[in-house]
Amino acid sequence: MVNQKSFQDYYPDELSHCYGCGRLNEHGLKIRSYWDGQDAVAVIEPKSYHIGIPGYVYGGLIASVIDCHCIGTASAAALRAEGRAMDETLPFRFVTASLHVDYLRPAPIRAILEVRAKVKEIKGRKVIVAATVSVKDEICARGEVVAVQMPDKMMPASETA
Amino acid sequence: MVNQKSFQDYYPDELSHCYGCGRLNEHGLKIRSYWDGQDAVAVIEPKSYHIGIPGYVYGGLIASVIDCHCIGTASAAALRAEGRAMDETLPFRFVTASLHVDYLRPAPIRAILEVRAKVKEIKGRKVIVAATVSVKDEICARGEVVAVQMPDKMMPASETA
Repeated sequence: MVNQKSFQDYYPDELSHCYGCGRLNEHGLKIRSYWDGQDAVAVIEPKSYHIGIPGYVYGGLIASVIDCHCIGTASAAALRAEGRAMDETLPFRFVTASLHVDYLRPAPIRAILEVRAKVKEIKGRKVIVAATVSVKDEICARGEVVAVQMPDKMMPASETA
Repeated sequence: MVNQKSFQDYYPDELSHCYGCGRLNEHGLKIRSYWDGQDAVAVIEPKSYHIGIPGYVYGGLIASVIDCHCIGTASAAALRAEGRAMDETLPFRFVTASLHVDYLRPAPIRAILEVRAKVKEIKGRKVIVAATVSVKDEICARGEVVAVQMPDKMMPASETA
């Protein structure tokens, strides 16, 4: 998938600084998401210091990858629901209304995490996405994100802080 | 509070490498939690690159601080429920069974986040902790963590990976 463009590669530059998935955030995790049939998939290899209990991946990292992957999936799914391709138009940019993660078993560090998302519902500006995080096909965590289209007032151009 | 010992300062060295709150993780967030009456409080100043949409704090960071702060609170609360002080004995170490975050409004970057937690329930090895994340007394996110005492098999000494 490395030669393919990910969902996040279609975000415009001003919305590509996210610590989790922004291609322009040099400190960030650079999560990249792709369609795999009806599912969306991302893989990430945590750094050695991304641990909670030694030997196991930090739960906050798992929450972060679920968050960004589901938000990217919501963006791609909203376009696909309109029959449009991602390279045809600017994607909708979603933000997280809620995030839920159930940690089923500790994920070993020094392994590749596969995050797999399914769109549960698209309703107006809201998309609900469910995800699993697995290591070698064993599910370590399940998550759900309620994604909403970003309000215009959050656009960086209107930042006044 | 900087001269006080935080909950996490009482964790033994082998359980102090967490990316979120381990005092021995040089790359980590070093979240530190303290009692404030019945509440537990932590403050964190995100780095400039901890952004989601430019100008606003990354949601995954907010999830991470809720996670670690509530786990630390569970640990302190479990001891307190037994009438013991943290410097009297090794604290119980908890892990996250589930994490839920509702994002109410974007938290501006370049601000101090205050995370305030309340223990909702202590039942056997399980503690439920609710938290808010605020900037200048305005609540930006609400979270809830179900914390369970770490199973002995997760102790670093038994790591076989």
